[in-house]
Amino acid sequence: MRIVAALGGNALLQRGESPDADIQQAHVASAVRALTPLLRHDQVIITHGNGPQVGVLAVESAGDRALSHPFPFDVLGAQTQGMIGYWLAQELSTVLAGRQVGCLICRTLVRADDPALAHPTKFVGPVYAEATAKRLAARHRWDIRKDGTAWRRVVPSPEPTAVVELDLIRLLVSSGAVVICAGGGGVPVVEGTDGALHGIEAVLDKDLTAALLATALGADMLLLLTDVTAVIDGYGTPRARPIRHATPAQLRARSFPAGSMGPKVEAVCRFVEATSRPAAIGRLDDAAALLDGTAGTIVSTGARGRSPGPFR
Amino acid sequence: MRIVAALGGNALLQRGESPDADIQQAHVASAVRALTPLLRHDQVIITHGNGPQVGVLAVESAGDRALSHPFPFDVLGAQTQGMIGYWLAQELSTVLAGRQVGCLICRTLVRADDPALAHPTKFVGPVYAEATAKRLAARHRWDIRKDGTAWRRVVPSPEPTAVVELDLIRLLVSSGAVVICAGGGGVPVVEGTDGALHGIEAVLDKDLTAALLATALGADMLLLLTDVTAVIDGYGTPRARPIRHATPAQLRARSFPAGSMGPKVEAVCRFVEATSRPAAIGRLDDAAALLDGTAGTIVSTGARGRSPGPFR
Repeated sequence: MRIVAALGGNALLQRGESPDADIQQAHVASAVRALTPLLRHDQVIITHGNGPQVGVLAVESAGDRALSHPFPFDVLGAQTQGMIGYWLAQELSTVLAGRQVGCLICRTLVRADDPALAHPTKFVGPVYAEATAKRLAARHRWDIRKDGTAWRRVVPSPEPTAVVELDLIRLLVSSGAVVICAGGGGVPVVEGTDGALHGIEAVLDKDLTAALLATALGADMLLLLTDVTAVIDGYGTPRARPIRHATPAQLRARSFPAGSMGPKVEAVCRFVEATSRPAAIGRLDDAAALLDGTAGTIVSTGARGRSPGPFR
Repeated sequence: MRIVAALGGNALLQRGESPDADIQQAHVASAVRALTPLLRHDQVIITHGNGPQVGVLAVESAGDRALSHPFPFDVLGAQTQGMIGYWLAQELSTVLAGRQVGCLICRTLVRADDPALAHPTKFVGPVYAEATAKRLAARHRWDIRKDGTAWRRVVPSPEPTAVVELDLIRLLVSSGAVVICAGGGGVPVVEGTDGALHGIEAVLDKDLTAALLATALGADMLLLLTDVTAVIDGYGTPRARPIRHATPAQLRARSFPAGSMGPKVEAVCRFVEATSRPAAIGRLDDAAALLDGTAGTIVSTGARGRSPGPFR
């Protein structure tokens, strides 16, 4: 049984918390304890978000006077893959006692003609006063936009189309190792007309990359592990209720918040549509029950209300 | 033919240069062009230093007011593995056109009773005035020491004893992928009495880790690529001359600068003694000639003055 599990970056650093290493590592340790039921399976691929972490490093880099330009987001993303991957590997090694754990730094292909590249929408890095933001934008060729009362940089969020290191991930996971990969959705790269890969300043949706990975690896199940119990139908309305089971078509007939649940729903729909295998969205602490189909939102090709059966 | 090549961290960022990402990536591109002759071989493992890079991130982290404590050196080291590994992977992918390239985040075991752990000797991170250094040392439990007129933090430099991810490196390289691994010598970890691995604040010598890797992987040759033409006998004396060929015993009968050439000489001696296979120390730009045995210092079990033969 091959499982792809995606952890939210917020699971490792909560809003308002100090981003100290020991605090984040303690969250990673809790996350790995919650993942223990998954680790009984022979083939496990773990991917993770990096939003809060890349934010911390972006602020540090923007304040580094030794640099003429702050580190670009491809480079910061690679740094977070190393850091979070190391933390995950340490905690997984503790739980797994002898089983190999490998963290592979990954790049994710984006189409050079992806229309999103011309329309930066994602706020990243520090918050600035208008004048500072405009000065920095001119100096570093940033796109900036007003975020509430302050100004921030914006970068595009293009579609992930392929993970460059896919064959190596397959090789490692087939050997029985637990593989940590494509953190933050992978470092976004485009293929130039010369065939070379060029890193770009963009952020990827880690759940869409996870769906891509799970599909390409022929995973038996995709788990998107977050801090909400289930996908909510009619979110924010009086008739709000958790969705227990759904088909991709049923989910696609509804709308979900674009910034949060939307991409997760899109990711599970893509995986189920491509593979006819089940996916789940739910709490990290419910990982075991999500595998059983007894918690969270289970998405499968089966009719609504019918459990896709035990996956454990 | 299996080759382990170690790149100096200074090859990627020279003293006095701005540590901007594009400057470092241009150096990485030059380094990879110099490595091209090696890449004709079927099994290539590349490791690298991270001194200048971890220094930049340490200064940034020390200045980050969101943190109660700056990120520890194990975490910063993991960040540099991600960053430098990404740059190397990008440039290698360009040169290799289709061959897989994988960067594995690595941890390196250190003995919990290594005597070096009780005697921190390596200067790391920013330079401080005495009062600031003493205040920070008390707050963060740092060891500090006078470095010239200023004060700096010191951390231990213990012996690397094993690379945790060794089996995965072997698997990847056996598949034909070029493997980037154990950057900065690997993140130093000790095994606790509970069997868990704990990261420690220490710096490893990347050449000693490279020798360990090359030995454990049964490499046919170990190359330490740096910015000097060869090991110099009588360095700094009127009778200084480059050593072209030597046995480990001949090198061990001499003494070399502890901070720079000493560990490189120790690393090649260990590899040649353990495997009876040749090793070389020389310029990155001479990588092809080092493989041929026509440049640098070639260390082998053969008699001095006798070429160990062409390795290309």
